[in-house]
Amino acid sequence: MAEYTLYYWPIPFRGQFVRAVLAHVHATWDERSAEEIYALKDQTPSIQSVPHMGPPVLTDHEAKASISQTQAILAYLGRKYDLIPKDRTLEALSHKIIADANDILYEMTLYNGAQMWTRESWSDYLPRLRRWMEMFEDLGRRHGLTRESGTILGTKDLSIADFTTHILWGTMTDKLPALRPVLEEAAPKVASLSDRIAGLPEQKELRTTSDEAYGEEWCSGQIEASLRAVI
Amino acid sequence: MAEYTLYYWPIPFRGQFVRAVLAHVHATWDERSAEEIYALKDQTPSIQSVPHMGPPVLTDHEAKASISQTQAILAYLGRKYDLIPKDRTLEALSHKIIADANDILYEMTLYNGAQMWTRESWSDYLPRLRRWMEMFEDLGRRHGLTRESGTILGTKDLSIADFTTHILWGTMTDKLPALRPVLEEAAPKVASLSDRIAGLPEQKELRTTSDEAYGEEWCSGQIEASLRAVI
Repeated sequence: MAEYTLYYWPIPFRGQFVRAVLAHVHATWDERSAEEIYALKDQTPSIQSVPHMGPPVLTDHEAKASISQTQAILAYLGRKYDLIPKDRTLEALSHKIIADANDILYEMTLYNGAQMWTRESWSDYLPRLRRWMEMFEDLGRRHGLTRESGTILGTKDLSIADFTTHILWGTMTDKLPALRPVLEEAAPKVASLSDRIAGLPEQKELRTTSDEAYGEEWCSGQIEASLRAVI
Repeated sequence: MAEYTLYYWPIPFRGQFVRAVLAHVHATWDERSAEEIYALKDQTPSIQSVPHMGPPVLTDHEAKASISQTQAILAYLGRKYDLIPKDRTLEALSHKIIADANDILYEMTLYNGAQMWTRESWSDYLPRLRRWMEMFEDLGRRHGLTRESGTILGTKDLSIADFTTHILWGTMTDKLPALRPVLEEAAPKVASLSDRIAGLPEQKELRTTSDEAYGEEWCSGQIEASLRAVI
């Protein structure tokens, strides 16, 4: 039996942040069908494994614990596998990076598809996306990323913040390759950190199985179609 | 000189989560004008105290640390003042509660005012808001809230999750009183916990000074006007 069950749609997007960490620590996990996740998310909160509005949900079978919300799942795994710095400020900055990533996913999908991209709205947004990239680059630079032994990004043993950054920018620009030059220009050190993580055997294997399962999908749905149309 | 500087708009909304915790631990803090916050948020990331897209930002002067993102600031203060459970699952559930609160603030403001409420969209949304309330009630109930000595909500010494829950639901239903009966019906124990926290001397004082400074505003702007019109 697998150590964990991850409940998430069969796409990268938010689920890939969790998968990347599970792969890194060599944990075993299974996943459930979209039909089952649909049914679970609409259950009365009191019979859900943890009250949640939508996936991801991660169940740790040994601990008999279920956690919802990407940020909370990453905090859980980060604590369990010692992937969060002990220093209070660096720990908080790890949570900041996770919160930034969450905001960027919301923005890129116009809040889970509440609206659709137009050529005009995308061109208005692009400078803001570039600024987000610069923010990651700058935060990394301040904390030693240029020396490849950063304290918050590019950490020696790789941290939750490193994987979050890799999945955010690496997966996004992998699935939407027109954005890769934007990342390389706005955040070259982040792009190179992401590539370094992508080259690890566990992450290469994850990418292969994910590509086989999800194809070119990133966030999926009409919003992905609208995003691809304007990029 | 104050121990902290909080950079946030002169409204409750996200800033009040931070203010409530600072008040609880008897920390001193000052705040800056909206004009200054506007100017700071548009600075080049590399010259910001911490790279950020918008407030809140909290500066801890003694630690010479600046943190952006409500979730990260609460994680920082929670760690510093020992307001987060040591148990790994309860710690992750604290982060889940903060992430849920963040989602609810986004939803209630239609993603910081990206759209405006109509009578129809609000009436479609109301069952979802009620479900969010039920989720908090249920999570509290599972972890002992009914016994008034819960491990995640209604904790003996009050935790970050308690203050987050109080500010989310208490401030929302205080500023938008038509929602108070909805909360009492969907989440009676959460309503009562929130009232209990509101009655603490530090929180009463915070509410008095906030009411004097911000009046009846909650999230402010056109989106607040549209919210008040439909509720």
